[in-house]
Amino acid sequence: MSTMMRQVVLASYAKGSPVAANFRVEQAPIPTPGAGEVLVRTLWLSLDPLIRFALDEVRITGATHLHPGDVIYGGTISQVVASHHPDYAVGDYVEGRTGWREYAALDPIKADPVRGALRKLDPELAPLETALGVLGMTGQTAHACMVGIGRVAADETVVISAAGGAVGTIAGQIGKLKGARVVGIAGGADKCAAVRALGFDDCVDYKAPDFAEQLKAAVPGGIDVYVDNVGGDVTLAVMPLLKYRARMPVCGYIAYYGVGMEGPGPDHLPGFFRMIMSKGLELRGFGGQFVGGDAAIAELAVWLDSGRISYPVTVVNGLENAAATFCESFIPGNSHIGKVLVKIAAP
Amino acid sequence: MSTMMRQVVLASYAKGSPVAANFRVEQAPIPTPGAGEVLVRTLWLSLDPLIRFALDEVRITGATHLHPGDVIYGGTISQVVASHHPDYAVGDYVEGRTGWREYAALDPIKADPVRGALRKLDPELAPLETALGVLGMTGQTAHACMVGIGRVAADETVVISAAGGAVGTIAGQIGKLKGARVVGIAGGADKCAAVRALGFDDCVDYKAPDFAEQLKAAVPGGIDVYVDNVGGDVTLAVMPLLKYRARMPVCGYIAYYGVGMEGPGPDHLPGFFRMIMSKGLELRGFGGQFVGGDAAIAELAVWLDSGRISYPVTVVNGLENAAATFCESFIPGNSHIGKVLVKIAAP
Repeated sequence: MSTMMRQVVLASYAKGSPVAANFRVEQAPIPTPGAGEVLVRTLWLSLDPLIRFALDEVRITGATHLHPGDVIYGGTISQVVASHHPDYAVGDYVEGRTGWREYAALDPIKADPVRGALRKLDPELAPLETALGVLGMTGQTAHACMVGIGRVAADETVVISAAGGAVGTIAGQIGKLKGARVVGIAGGADKCAAVRALGFDDCVDYKAPDFAEQLKAAVPGGIDVYVDNVGGDVTLAVMPLLKYRARMPVCGYIAYYGVGMEGPGPDHLPGFFRMIMSKGLELRGFGGQFVGGDAAIAELAVWLDSGRISYPVTVVNGLENAAATFCESFIPGNSHIGKVLVKIAAP
Repeated sequence: MSTMMRQVVLASYAKGSPVAANFRVEQAPIPTPGAGEVLVRTLWLSLDPLIRFALDEVRITGATHLHPGDVIYGGTISQVVASHHPDYAVGDYVEGRTGWREYAALDPIKADPVRGALRKLDPELAPLETALGVLGMTGQTAHACMVGIGRVAADETVVISAAGGAVGTIAGQIGKLKGARVVGIAGGADKCAAVRALGFDDCVDYKAPDFAEQLKAAVPGGIDVYVDNVGGDVTLAVMPLLKYRARMPVCGYIAYYGVGMEGPGPDHLPGFFRMIMSKGLELRGFGGQFVGGDAAIAELAVWLDSGRISYPVTVVNGLENAAATFCESFIPGNSHIGKVLVKIAAP
């Protein structure tokens, strides 16, 4: 085995949407695990838009903060190749947040300041990569937004933005299982077709010149639950269609990820307050809602195992393609469907 | 009795904060009640900031819409002086939304498209004017925000903006009854002193140059519930101090009442979404939350009767002073404390 590996580091802080020049692939020695540590080999890397927050020069609330030269953080599926810890054996498969690199050495118990130990995976139960998607943070988010926060009920009308995305594709299928009418919003005819193929009742293209009218026609009785993954103009078009006392789980806001706390004027907060108050809307953010996450994953696993939900993925091969694919996620109307994964190595 | 009365009509649509020139006092014949109608004489008039929405030239969601020459709408306490309806007798006291005029003739059952019939009042149970405040819409709003939406619990920290206002003064006292630590935000030292005198644990002056620091020092453990009556810069200063999963009842947003849907830039919505999502905040608007309102008023009546809450009011005399006093409500740091009422006539 070679003594060198590849890793992707921050080359420069991102401004607005991330670009390839913000990243650099470099060679580094494969690390040596210390006492109590394990060495893991990365098999799959998850490309989550949330990583964008770590690339800002100025740190705002909560986000992980990287500096130039730091390895990009990110969720992974790995295999233990050396172990100095009694609970982790060579050959074990684990999910963690070991970053954009081919190998990592770390204390498996204190692997992540937020999520704790490396999670061991049983490859017999489900394909390994589902631990990053439908049976991981993505699935938990979709479940929390539809069930926990959205409280979606039969015969209600649900609208989901970024419906073709990792969270949106799962959230919409949960909505159908709950008996709701589910309308997606996505960019472009191909993506809308893919969304409809997942069982959504309808999908509206936000790039259409008459998007607002199409959306209105797609929800003739108004909207009970709006699962928002984007913010921005799409959300401003949705809000007038919300019913009184509608619920709005805020699960993401990709339109603002490169913006910081303030965007160019005008200020849309006055109208936002007006809608919230006059309609008695309920908004809740997904952050800090991980309580109950294991139960959510258990329910999703049953649905997945019985074929009641499908699991769309977009897979690219090789760490060298991670940065370009990540950047593409921020381009409206990109071709990604579902969870975006990088295959780093075979088990 | 004279055959003429005074009423206040819209002279011109308001732009931004309302000004005296938007209103005109005029003489009109005292109306004659038709079949099934009653003639009521106005005793008290309620000056609610929400009326501002009716004065816009362009109608946005939901608001009552007035045109130049229309009588200004508003909540009133009146006495029946002539009746062609079997359920309403001469001498009865009623609460309704009969507007800024000395007399009104109307069908007492269909008095208000939203709230229905004129509500009969028993002057033995509580002072008549409480039906416009603590035992009326103001009290319902404060109760809904603190109990229904805010779910304020013992030992939690509550911050209330416009703490010296009609809703804020009642909301803060409810918070104290629930065992919470209650911190008000108000404009000026006198108003802050009045807020503290109501039992608030602290009150921070938003006009102070070091307001943000003072507020932070007043809530060392962070904020569990923020009852927002203002929006704008005050709210933007509060949000970084909210705890994870804090509740934020949106009960008003006087900073935006003259703004319409968009204010001058920058756009604060990106930061707002970031706070909502990263902290898992729960925002709910008060609109459409009137369900359970009678139970709220019953509880407030018990508290009022047993002296556990007080009922601050600012009273001006005479319909001719209504417009100037209403306009003053929109000037930050005005001297109003509690519910603002105009005394039109004695019973």
